[in-house]
Amino acid sequence: MKSEKNINSPTFFVGVRGNGIISFGSGQPDLPPPEQIYKILPQYHAFKYGLIQGQENLRTALATHYPKAHADDFVITNGASEALDLTFRALALLVGKGRVLLPRPYYYSYPMLVKLAGLQPVFTDLNTEGRIDIKDFKKKIKGCKAVLINSPSNPTGKVEDIATLKEIEKITNQLDIHLLSDEVYKDLIYERKNYLLRGPKVVTINSFSKTYAMCGLRVGYLYSRDRQLVDRVIDIKGKTSMNTSIISQEMAYAATQVPMRQLESQISVWRERRDLICNGLKKMGLELWKPEGAFYVFPKIQKANQVVNELFYKHKVIVYDGAWFGSPDRIRLSYALDVKDIREGLARIRKYISARPELLK
Amino acid sequence: MKSEKNINSPTFFVGVRGNGIISFGSGQPDLPPPEQIYKILPQYHAFKYGLIQGQENLRTALATHYPKAHADDFVITNGASEALDLTFRALALLVGKGRVLLPRPYYYSYPMLVKLAGLQPVFTDLNTEGRIDIKDFKKKIKGCKAVLINSPSNPTGKVEDIATLKEIEKITNQLDIHLLSDEVYKDLIYERKNYLLRGPKVVTINSFSKTYAMCGLRVGYLYSRDRQLVDRVIDIKGKTSMNTSIISQEMAYAATQVPMRQLESQISVWRERRDLICNGLKKMGLELWKPEGAFYVFPKIQKANQVVNELFYKHKVIVYDGAWFGSPDRIRLSYALDVKDIREGLARIRKYISARPELLK
Repeated sequence: MKSEKNINSPTFFVGVRGNGIISFGSGQPDLPPPEQIYKILPQYHAFKYGLIQGQENLRTALATHYPKAHADDFVITNGASEALDLTFRALALLVGKGRVLLPRPYYYSYPMLVKLAGLQPVFTDLNTEGRIDIKDFKKKIKGCKAVLINSPSNPTGKVEDIATLKEIEKITNQLDIHLLSDEVYKDLIYERKNYLLRGPKVVTINSFSKTYAMCGLRVGYLYSRDRQLVDRVIDIKGKTSMNTSIISQEMAYAATQVPMRQLESQISVWRERRDLICNGLKKMGLELWKPEGAFYVFPKIQKANQVVNELFYKHKVIVYDGAWFGSPDRIRLSYALDVKDIREGLARIRKYISARPELLK
Repeated sequence: MKSEKNINSPTFFVGVRGNGIISFGSGQPDLPPPEQIYKILPQYHAFKYGLIQGQENLRTALATHYPKAHADDFVITNGASEALDLTFRALALLVGKGRVLLPRPYYYSYPMLVKLAGLQPVFTDLNTEGRIDIKDFKKKIKGCKAVLINSPSNPTGKVEDIATLKEIEKITNQLDIHLLSDEVYKDLIYERKNYLLRGPKVVTINSFSKTYAMCGLRVGYLYSRDRQLVDRVIDIKGKTSMNTSIISQEMAYAATQVPMRQLESQISVWRERRDLICNGLKKMGLELWKPEGAFYVFPKIQKANQVVNELFYKHKVIVYDGAWFGSPDRIRLSYALDVKDIREGLARIRKYISARPELLK
């Protein structure tokens, strides 16, 4: 390596693009949002504060997507990130300090969100198939105040079995602790429909970013039937950010009016990309979990941090270090880019890896 | 009183309107934003993540508003609320736990924002003229990690003397502690131009909500030359909410291109309203500080909580309890409503108060 700065966080790559770079980095759909969300703009003229909880029309529309839900069960947030942050902060006020269980590998912001709220993250490692190890889960959850599940998972691309999810519902219900479920990839599952986790203390986190490709517009939400928690979240949000952008919410409302079949047609695009990248990486000898949802693949590799640096500085390919997700022996590749770019990126990685057999343990 | 629910927070009034109600409650300009902010909408088509720090065009435009500022000194946030929240969270990580000094009366969210970040609020009471008591300030600031100034002030409407502000710059500079300055009403001062607090550890909090009447669109920002703090804020925001809505930011950028004289013409509207409400309240015998900025007046009154309840339930007039701002012997009235409504509201208050001389101590 030359004296380039060591790459130690995904933020290094923010805004890094063009110049022949192929990015398997950012987790952002490249397919545009439904055209309908822009149709409301020419007539738009609102400007006053919105409800801190979120606009009534949007919450009412969301309530029709969840069985027996009511508009009051939702809080609209600045993306799923704020929904998670507010939930942890509300939890810390409701249950006091305590431990939160996170399956590892995890989405990179989870441990810091838990810590920022004054809570303590503890981990249960996924088994060799990339799934929750329910035996270890049962051991580690003892004494925890909450658990956060993310299925389909970023970074693994795995989807938990429905049996596992039901077991987790049962365990958390018996322990009477909160079960947070980050389901932002719920509409990007290749094999089956999403299974919605349920229960009196379940908090579902979701977003318009992935399903509708509205990342930059920042509309997420939480849904829970725990009214005490929802009220606390609204109270905190009233101090920490007030309402979510009213124009973004109006665009999100327009998105809820788009027929699901229009979105479902994209699944075949994602599946084609997944198969292309998985087959390409496997042919190079990389061991990986076949993704069942989302748009990430998370292959094993030796010296992952060195690989991230060398692929970027020598081959202009962006991949993420598994260490950022709690898994230092892997790299994460997003396949939210078109087939031509995936092929070109794979060719560069193949060239790099074929000269370094020591990277394949 | 009948069995109506006691009103104990401003959130009680969110969404309460129409039905003959006159609201001196919410602090939201009723004059619309400049038409220019809507002109960008028909062509708008972006959707990808923006920079967590905020869009480059907006930060570059803001940098021209501050002497010697650079686009990198700014972070664009979901309103001034998020800017404050992120600043306190970053401070807690940088300086550890500690005390934050707040002049009292304060904007109602300040104490909770301080506490949510794991810091401890301490207070210096304003003097009988509604200004910072610099002697008490010097005493209370000892051992504090930071101080938050809000001039023009919500709820008092007072603007601190430039001499006082310079003294505070000097004190905090000598103590080498952070000086947060919430200047969201900087363009709503009746007597002089705003004095921008400066220093290596000053964090200026600002917003498009008041100057441009863009409350619901949620674009605020912080500006600081403390690069370590700015970096930490960006790092936290990358986990807690990601970028601020890109479409709201584009509207804010359009607002920065509006000539200031177009905005300054509104000052005469605000001054007329201020004079109307102040004279009306004084004629009823209420003691008050003459507002020099913002659009609030904060008269003294006995049994403020009872007054808030009775005015609402019996006279359909919304005013806010001074206790929510740390001052239980006052009520806050926003005069962000048209002259006709101000007159009608005053008539109702006059009728109520004239029958209750005991409220005027």
